[in-house]
Amino acid sequence: MTLSASLPIGLFDSGVGGLTVFKAVRDLLPRETLVYLGDTARVPYGVKSKDTIVKYTLGAAEKLREQNIKALIIACNTATSAALPTLREYLGSIPVIGVIDPGAEAAVRVSENKKIAVIGTEATIRAKAYQKAIARISPGTRVVSRACTLFVPLAEEGWLSGEATEKICEKYLGDIFADADAPDTLLLGCTHFPLLIPALRKVVGEKVKIVDSAKATALRARDALEAANLLAWEKSAPDRFFTTDNPERFARTGKLFLEGKLDEVELIDI
Amino acid sequence: MTLSASLPIGLFDSGVGGLTVFKAVRDLLPRETLVYLGDTARVPYGVKSKDTIVKYTLGAAEKLREQNIKALIIACNTATSAALPTLREYLGSIPVIGVIDPGAEAAVRVSENKKIAVIGTEATIRAKAYQKAIARISPGTRVVSRACTLFVPLAEEGWLSGEATEKICEKYLGDIFADADAPDTLLLGCTHFPLLIPALRKVVGEKVKIVDSAKATALRARDALEAANLLAWEKSAPDRFFTTDNPERFARTGKLFLEGKLDEVELIDI
Repeated sequence: MTLSASLPIGLFDSGVGGLTVFKAVRDLLPRETLVYLGDTARVPYGVKSKDTIVKYTLGAAEKLREQNIKALIIACNTATSAALPTLREYLGSIPVIGVIDPGAEAAVRVSENKKIAVIGTEATIRAKAYQKAIARISPGTRVVSRACTLFVPLAEEGWLSGEATEKICEKYLGDIFADADAPDTLLLGCTHFPLLIPALRKVVGEKVKIVDSAKATALRARDALEAANLLAWEKSAPDRFFTTDNPERFARTGKLFLEGKLDEVELIDI
Repeated sequence: MTLSASLPIGLFDSGVGGLTVFKAVRDLLPRETLVYLGDTARVPYGVKSKDTIVKYTLGAAEKLREQNIKALIIACNTATSAALPTLREYLGSIPVIGVIDPGAEAAVRVSENKKIAVIGTEATIRAKAYQKAIARISPGTRVVSRACTLFVPLAEEGWLSGEATEKICEKYLGDIFADADAPDTLLLGCTHFPLLIPALRKVVGEKVKIVDSAKATALRARDALEAANLLAWEKSAPDRFFTTDNPERFARTGKLFLEGKLDEVELIDI
């Protein structure tokens, strides 16, 4: 198939978290048509094994290919870290953009003391994806990493602030940032985590730079499309949202991520 | 197939939570051989739609039938509330025991002021399974119910006590039990929740009776097997544990539920 600039960009996530990337892409590239697929029937990916994550991600990519996408953004750290090379091979000429390299580069750029704390799901942290990407870009940078398993259900529950949420953030991160020698940068290695920034800010203090991959990934997508001469001139159709389960819950939770603008959600089977 | 007393009992849950039921059955019926299947590749069920839960539950039941079980215990409230009638039809002569009726009966038995608070996953509460069961058994009893979505990941993360956990319990349940007219009984409508009893106790106070379905379900299973003349005389094989993903995580988390006694975990595909 020949790719054309008027085709949509596909975005994939295990659930609603990737909507933070969707929003960044929509804001940066308002003329693009976007198709989002959230595999809510099998969320969360973050506690699953690599083989399972690769299998689910390929299934989702196939569904998006059926929508004739011109590029695929894996708006999920866990899926990027487990499946990016496999996906690139599978999708052939369709550009595939992950969230990890853009996020790692943005964090390295802003860190002055060359100490970065990376937080993500269990699978992302276990795969050491960010640790490896940062070591490649800036070998002198020290990285401390931590799996924050409860942050995904916490964000999906909509508990974005308040005492319980702050206590959870404190329990995961308090010790890392208590030190005088602490990292000056916190890299959010999961697309759900930007929702928790106000609560995280209370734990890490005002001076720590909080980096999320969403904007960096949108910029990377623009560069990739520009290089391939695939940037759209005008929106060819309304954005679409697909979910593998429970569209009502997707719409309800998704609104938190898109700040109130969520159109109709369509149910599909993978 | 003819059922025989020496065959194993199957137990099914979406993850590790059903191990609280496993433990109750093992303690009550030490001569039985048990086969446990946790569908960890697709946990949690509690936020999924009914159709999806029924589909997954039937797939798991089929895997357990291949193990020649003589009875099936659905050690999962969400699966019981969504799929019990379908499962009974599907498994024909194999007795199927759910967790909801035994739990509802136990709560009605201990409540003196005829006010019961039921907590569970979003799917269990939405299906009103406990509410209906209690109304059938004791039409005069008042029921207040609440979905406590974060309790499953909280228990699976092993955060069973401490400030963060207590704040979460407080946020979900504080208002229900603040009232002078509050329920005198808290029914744990999810097999994960018994792990959180110490934290829950701090919120509900010393006088409230906390009822979990595990023991009531084990008693119901014994009665069903006795009635069918299927109680085992001696253990015919070691207990087995199957999981659909990430056996290491299953073993690690499962130990919390079984208090340190978890044998080898086998990976299967559904």
